[in-house]
Order: sequence, then C-alpha cells, then structure tokens
Amino acid sequence: MAVGDRRNSRAWERRRNEIVDEAARLFAARGYHATGVAELRDTVGLGRGALYYYIDSKENLLSLIHDRVIVHVLAAGNKAEGLEGTASERLRYLSRELIQIVTLYPDHVWVFLHEYRSLSAAAAGTFRSSRQSFENSIESILIDGVQSGEFKIANTRLSALAWLGLHNYIYIWYRPGRTFTVDMISETFSDTFLNGIVVR
Amino acid sequence: MAVGDRRNSRAWERRRNEIVDEAARLFAARGYHATGVAELRDTVGLGRGALYYYIDSKENLLSLIHDRVIVHVLAAGNKAEGLEGTASERLRYLSRELIQIVTLYPDHVWVFLHEYRSLSAAAAGTFRSSRQSFENSIESILIDGVQSGEFKIANTRLSALAWLGLHNYIYIWYRPGRTFTVDMISETFSDTFLNGIVVR
Repeated sequence: MAVGDRRNSRAWERRRNEIVDEAARLFAARGYHATGVAELRDTVGLGRGALYYYIDSKENLLSLIHDRVIVHVLAAGNKAEGLEGTASERLRYLSRELIQIVTLYPDHVWVFLHEYRSLSAAAAGTFRSSRQSFENSIESILIDGVQSGEFKIANTRLSALAWLGLHNYIYIWYRPGRTFTVDMISETFSDTFLNGIVVR
Repeated sequence: MAVGDRRNSRAWERRRNEIVDEAARLFAARGYHATGVAELRDTVGLGRGALYYYIDSKENLLSLIHDRVIVHVLAAGNKAEGLEGTASERLRYLSRELIQIVTLYPDHVWVFLHEYRSLSAAAAGTFRSSRQSFENSIESILIDGVQSGEFKIANTRLSALAWLGLHNYIYIWYRPGRTFTVDMISETFSDTFLNGIVVR
C-alpha cells in the first residue's frame, strides 16, 4: 500500500460498503455470472481503476458481500450463547436477531447462499467455517437445554439444522412491508419450534 | 414436427431425462450461467443438432429440470390433501414424501431454487403457480387441523412457509449416506413441528 493510501479509512470503508450493497442488489437480481463489471461500474459511477481501489476483483465482491452479513450473524450467535436466561429465551433471542438480519440484507443472503460455489478456495473455507461456527452456537444452546432438562431432542445436530432451515428460508419469500413483520415471524417460529422440543 | 419424428416416444423421453439429469448435475456443480452448451454436449456425448432434438434450448433445460421434480412434489401434495386420517398423519406423510424427493433430486432442487430468476417469463409463471399450489396443499392440511381442533395456529400461511422452509432447506446440507436417513430427518422434523402446533 502506497504512503498516503486512504484504504481502511472511514470514508473508504463507507464507500466500499455502498459498492458491496449495490453489487449484492445487482447480483441478486441478475445473478453473479450474468452481471458484468462494466454494469457494476455504471451503477456505482466509478471507472475501472477507482472500482478496484475499493474491491480488488469481482470475485472478491462475493467474499465482501458474505462478510458484510456474517459478522452480524456470528455476533448474534455468540451473544445468544453467552446470555443469561433459559435455553428457550436464548433461542428466542437468536431467532429474532437472525430474522432481523435476513430481512435487512435479503440480497446479500440471496447472493452468498446461491453463489458460494463461485467463491475462491480461501473464501470458501471462511464461508464454511463461519457456517459451522453459527451451527455450533445453535447446537450449544440446544445441548444446554437438554442438559438442564428443559428440552427433549433426539439429535441436537439435526435439530440445529432444522432450526436453521426454518429461519434461513425466509429470504426466499420475505418482501419488506408486503408479508409479515419480523416480530410476527420470529414469535410464530419460536413458539412452534420451542413447543416442539420443550419438556412438559 | 416432421412425419416420422420420434419425439415424445418412450426412447426419446428416456434419453431426454438422462440429459436433463446430467444438466442438473453440471449446473448444480458450476452454475447455470458458467456452464456452456458445448460442455453439456461433451458430457452427454451429443452433437449440437442431436442435443437440440431433445431439449430445444439451454434456457428450456431450466424448465425441464424444474418439471422433472415438481411433478412429484405436486402429486405428493395432492395425495396428502386427499388422504384419510388426521391432519397430523397427512402432514407426516407429506414430510416424508418431500424429503424423499429432495434427497433423490438434490441437484435439480439446487438448480431450480437458485436459477429460477433465469427462467423465461412463461416458465417463471409455471414455477410460481406450482410453488403456490404446493403451499396451498400444505396450508389446506393446516386449516383442516385447525378446524377439527387438532392444531392451534396463529397464521396458517406463515406456518405453511415455516413447514416448507424446514423441509426445503435440507438440499443445502444433505449428502447421501453421509448424514441422516430420510426416515430420521422426517421423523424429527414432523415430531418437532407437530408438537409445536398440536393442541393438548
């Protein structure tokens, strides 16, 4: 990096996030492969050099789109694991947080769930370990609930995958303002899932 | 169609299904846009003219991949709606059928869930109405259960979407022989979901 390079400054990061969000919108609407760099440049109003000052490469955009969302997902998972309260309460908290993230970033979620096979090997490794880490957060709350006698679960890994599918699939049908609110979705999903595993 | 054209014969249909299945595998592994027609021709061992004798166009392959799976999904939905038995029993039946289909055709499901934005307008209309029809089958069983006093559900549409997400998302993580059996997944999911909505 040259002396005086403003990369990693706040202004640079803000501008980069704008570009990443715009790319997520374009890729979600037309597909990653079908969208050219020229089209992206036109949309964000940057020349070739200026664009690469922010994003390195088109392929790297996929990682950046992923990172922009996963940081919130992992933070929510870690916070939920460490919360005071019953396993049910912690899972309810995580449900609401995850639905909030999915509904705030539907394009990003679309892109990284659909295009992760286009990630570079290194980025694919990061993607897998992030997903694993989040699945572990969910499973660890389920295990806590089983150990405390709160939940009855045949296989906590399978139940963690069930919980994740229940929540992740929202990105397919959710449209802001057109369907259900985050609170209503989260409450219904948590009521159903928790009633399904709670010991009476 | 010329006189003597063997299209729609059994042999033609069988060969076409092989091509569709091979295309699903290729598209799932590399993406629809990234896979060229030449690559597909090499894989199935056909020249350009011979390939188009079976599939019309690359775009049409997306519809064919979709049709190959959705016919089973819709049949399962219709059969479940018409079954004798409680709403719980019918939903259990549908769960097992859907998981069986998703695990038999993971590549096809991958392709049509990921690439439906690349469908032609007419094919996209068919895709939407098939999805709607299947969602209606699920919801109608849930409504039956509410009306008979078997289920307590705040919003049957939202619960139908929850049930669908729970099941559809399997295609993301399921690997034949490497994870759980169809029976185990279906039993766990049905137990959890039904315990979550059944009136005690």
